[in-house]
Amino acid sequence: MKKPTWVVDKERAKRSAANETVWLFGLHAVRDALMNPARTKLRLLVTKNAADKLAEAIEASGMEPEMEDARKFSAPIAAESVHQGAALEVKPLDWGNFEDVCATGEGAPLVVLLDRVTDPHNVGAILRSAEVFGARAVVATRQHAVPETGALAKTASGALERQPYLRVTNLADSMEALRRMGFVLLGLDGEAEATLSEAVAAAGTRPIALVLGAEGPGLREKTRETCDQLVRILFGGAFGSLNVSNAAAVSLYAATAGR
Amino acid sequence: MKKPTWVVDKERAKRSAANETVWLFGLHAVRDALMNPARTKLRLLVTKNAADKLAEAIEASGMEPEMEDARKFSAPIAAESVHQGAALEVKPLDWGNFEDVCATGEGAPLVVLLDRVTDPHNVGAILRSAEVFGARAVVATRQHAVPETGALAKTASGALERQPYLRVTNLADSMEALRRMGFVLLGLDGEAEATLSEAVAAAGTRPIALVLGAEGPGLREKTRETCDQLVRILFGGAFGSLNVSNAAAVSLYAATAGR
Repeated sequence: MKKPTWVVDKERAKRSAANETVWLFGLHAVRDALMNPARTKLRLLVTKNAADKLAEAIEASGMEPEMEDARKFSAPIAAESVHQGAALEVKPLDWGNFEDVCATGEGAPLVVLLDRVTDPHNVGAILRSAEVFGARAVVATRQHAVPETGALAKTASGALERQPYLRVTNLADSMEALRRMGFVLLGLDGEAEATLSEAVAAAGTRPIALVLGAEGPGLREKTRETCDQLVRILFGGAFGSLNVSNAAAVSLYAATAGR
Repeated sequence: MKKPTWVVDKERAKRSAANETVWLFGLHAVRDALMNPARTKLRLLVTKNAADKLAEAIEASGMEPEMEDARKFSAPIAAESVHQGAALEVKPLDWGNFEDVCATGEGAPLVVLLDRVTDPHNVGAILRSAEVFGARAVVATRQHAVPETGALAKTASGALERQPYLRVTNLADSMEALRRMGFVLLGLDGEAEATLSEAVAAAGTRPIALVLGAEGPGLREKTRETCDQLVRILFGGAFGSLNVSNAAAVSLYAATAGR
């Protein structure tokens, strides 16, 4: 029997996603990826100068670098990218199943959910903070979020190799799954009555999911409704708002300090 | 009697500094500066579209905008600047004397000192956080720091108009001045023994100065020696480091929460 068209399409999309590759660039990002045994590495393009600086990592990786002329670096990355003479084609990391990582992953029983945060610099900084505070995962949607790209890897400054960054189809569905797993879902909202530290204290030893929206629009309606509680970061100033990566860092600190 | 050359040079440098102007750009930064009565505003260049969006602020400022063609926007700003059709020439804000602002300024008895933090995106985010947590001032050196520029104003997202950003000649001298005023000087250092929250608790009701260095090099030797205590942010992860603006936000939160 012939497969229906939609099945063929779906299978093709799946194959194409599986074949998707990413070009990482910059000495720091390339070094960390070379040293990561979980990374599928495909091609390494380096200038002589970068090859010298990365010698140890290249040897550890067992890769055969393709030497490039610094004046005509041919890696397919954006012209303005600060590549420092090093680019590495890789497959996105497979962190495994969303529920497994959140339920039994390393680190504190703490995850960060991002609702349409689309700036790679902010998401990169959030991955760094999540790693520092030992969160199990940063979770974003497959659409309207930052894909694993070279720019994200560069701002994540190594954290992309170590901090699970999971992409889910539907954020509200994933929030419901976390609730069933015992997580308390706290949505950050500057207008909320309760403070984050009160809510963290009330959560006791239960695992916590921090939900952050983009600057400006904040959390979407459906996301807000799916939270257990909306909370604000307590502060003394009369004006202003935190950058989203700073709000994430403060929330992670508040959710881990003294627990 | 004729003035010696060095006096003439010094006076000329002073006059030139006084005449120094900055081009702010982008709708948000230009609107906030137009609405700020403390700003000396010189020229406003806008496209028709931007003029419509800024109509209220332009009227409030009493300025006569110079209309620009969107296809050849002539403001002297970097080509890649996202100006959104609006640029405003201003004088840097005069926040007054360093000691006065730190001793009696608005907000909590809390200041942030930056030791060679040179990325405008980080300094902009730190100004936002300082405003949110009600710090009296962000202090940087005149050299090796981020000047008040359009790029800084844009990332500060309005905070540059409201949050005192002071530039001093010598950071260690200013730290000594703060100590004489009763401030406890806490230097952030990932390798420190004591935690920030312990040090904040020990400071009781005394004013606090948080001292942060650039990512990588950290605090300079002289700066470290001038601190009362080096402290670290407590966290659970085994790897990684916070971006400097995230470290500042967490420190400001830790220094204000529960005081």
